[in-house]
Amino acid sequence: MKQLTVDLGERSYPIYIGDALLGQSALLQKHIPGKSALIVSNETVAPLYLSKVSAMLSGIRHESVILPDGEEYKNLDVLNRIYDACLNHHLDRNTTIIALGGGVVGDMAGFAAASYQRGVNLIQIPTTLLSQVDSSVGGKTGVNHALGKNMIGAFYQPRAVIADTSTLNTLPERELCAGLAEIIKYGLIHDRSFFDWINDNLDALLRRDPRALAYAIEVSCQVKADVVAADERESGQRALLNLGHTFGHAIENGMGYGQWLHGEAVGAGMAMAARLSQILGWLDADQTKAVIDQIRRAKLPVQAPSDLSVDQFIELMSVDKKVLDGVLRLVLMKDIGSAVVTNDYTETQLREAIKSSYV
Amino acid sequence: MKQLTVDLGERSYPIYIGDALLGQSALLQKHIPGKSALIVSNETVAPLYLSKVSAMLSGIRHESVILPDGEEYKNLDVLNRIYDACLNHHLDRNTTIIALGGGVVGDMAGFAAASYQRGVNLIQIPTTLLSQVDSSVGGKTGVNHALGKNMIGAFYQPRAVIADTSTLNTLPERELCAGLAEIIKYGLIHDRSFFDWINDNLDALLRRDPRALAYAIEVSCQVKADVVAADERESGQRALLNLGHTFGHAIENGMGYGQWLHGEAVGAGMAMAARLSQILGWLDADQTKAVIDQIRRAKLPVQAPSDLSVDQFIELMSVDKKVLDGVLRLVLMKDIGSAVVTNDYTETQLREAIKSSYV
Repeated sequence: MKQLTVDLGERSYPIYIGDALLGQSALLQKHIPGKSALIVSNETVAPLYLSKVSAMLSGIRHESVILPDGEEYKNLDVLNRIYDACLNHHLDRNTTIIALGGGVVGDMAGFAAASYQRGVNLIQIPTTLLSQVDSSVGGKTGVNHALGKNMIGAFYQPRAVIADTSTLNTLPERELCAGLAEIIKYGLIHDRSFFDWINDNLDALLRRDPRALAYAIEVSCQVKADVVAADERESGQRALLNLGHTFGHAIENGMGYGQWLHGEAVGAGMAMAARLSQILGWLDADQTKAVIDQIRRAKLPVQAPSDLSVDQFIELMSVDKKVLDGVLRLVLMKDIGSAVVTNDYTETQLREAIKSSYV
Repeated sequence: MKQLTVDLGERSYPIYIGDALLGQSALLQKHIPGKSALIVSNETVAPLYLSKVSAMLSGIRHESVILPDGEEYKNLDVLNRIYDACLNHHLDRNTTIIALGGGVVGDMAGFAAASYQRGVNLIQIPTTLLSQVDSSVGGKTGVNHALGKNMIGAFYQPRAVIADTSTLNTLPERELCAGLAEIIKYGLIHDRSFFDWINDNLDALLRRDPRALAYAIEVSCQVKADVVAADERESGQRALLNLGHTFGHAIENGMGYGQWLHGEAVGAGMAMAARLSQILGWLDADQTKAVIDQIRRAKLPVQAPSDLSVDQFIELMSVDKKVLDGVLRLVLMKDIGSAVVTNDYTETQLREAIKSSYV
């Protein structure tokens, strides 16, 4: 087992990464201060792992609430089911909410923990590659609004993240690939050598080689932990972690939540960011091709959906959280391994990048 | 104008108390960092003061959203109207939400500010006595759930509180009295001499003598600011501010939100707390009578509603946020001016106190 730390002073917490962690009761229980817990999971994950987590809680009164599976259910109505469960079971302010599932479960359970009784304890047990390398770490929680993704939420840190890599064995391939999008992101924004490592090991990752996966998860979590420790509330460099996400959120929302997986939309979004970076003269044609090739090799889409017009893209992107005082800042690449947050582009260039992404 | 400070390090903020502050544009604008704002108000307050606040925002793009008036609307559905307004108007993360109204508006606008885009700026402009002396200060925000009051929310501090005492001239008497409940609370929990001052000045407060009101608001805000600075997230002494509130929340929820004003329920709840304190031998008969007399003189109810049985009371109280690991802690009085958080009572004694409160 590897243990990393997200260093946030008295709110610091560990990330445990390893095989078969779901058997280790003490690992979970030492982060539960009260006498009760609520496991939040979904219809897909619960049949696989709920009984294991329940067994880890022996001696602690625990309840569970099972949500429908999919980004289209990440909204206030479904969130309310978690509050209902908390209140019906008389869970008090000392309770612990345990998120067992992928990014959607983690985001919703996290926001429920942030807001139930103005804040209760939270533990993340991510069971997808995407949530293990990205969404379970760093405290971003929330739900979607019809008019924009992740528009309602809170920064709220868990007490621990337990990433059991053996849960990835049950992951559908489409979700494995979606997780690779966020792994690729870390190379593109931060670390050219990790980009190269991914190029060399993409086949191993796709066939779920445990050593390759464990290394990719560890590097990804370390980058994320470092960035979050330096800029918890995204006033600066944390925004770099959103490479591809403004384009991606527009795709997810415009196509209807749940049609594209988040990682798929981020994959296409990173390809679009690379194209705009090329239009700006920041990436040359070879670099742009290398970025897009890596995304494509991970079996992710690299094109914008033709269902969305350029105008629709522009409108959908205009509600992004990175708009400040009317100006949309985008994360773009100056080089492979070096990203910037910038508004140093014209709308004409942005439109050209979107247009070039349909083919 | 008086200026107090809630001392929370880099999140410290001023409370301005005075006459005709709604004319002072600079006072508001210096706390608005971005280029846009959303005024959240309700159907009662907006016709009186929205144009004034709008005039204070000249030069800043601002929008407004008007909620229905009443505690029965303090829920997730109505909260969503604030998010709708934010997104329809493309308000970004630099925007400022301005709560213009009483406690319900402040709680909902506050939670919207805490959660829209994971947190935007908040300014409280309380227009009722209750919100000026209590709810606008200290950062408690949230909405009710069908199963419990204030069960969904966040601790989220404003950038400033602007309490214009001249807005109290338009306040219905019933709401003036509801505000007196929280003023009386500060004497009971903290300050015997303030209790005596209230006894001497209750008639002046009821006829809205500006000097008496200004003094009562200032003392109340100072106590609240000190307590919040010492214990922002209610891990200790802040809980004392909930004297009468566990009984009161049970009344508000059990009778249907909006039937009793919050301050009325707190008035009756403090009388119930006094009776239980007497049963425990902590207050003598004269002290208990003095407490109840002061509440009654403020034209507040001092009896429990006969519509709620003792069993219903016990059930409703059991979901209170002061339940920890199954034990309901109550704020009770050891003396006038001295309160404690305690579970040092039996259910029999609690039942006896409720029973004795019907007559």
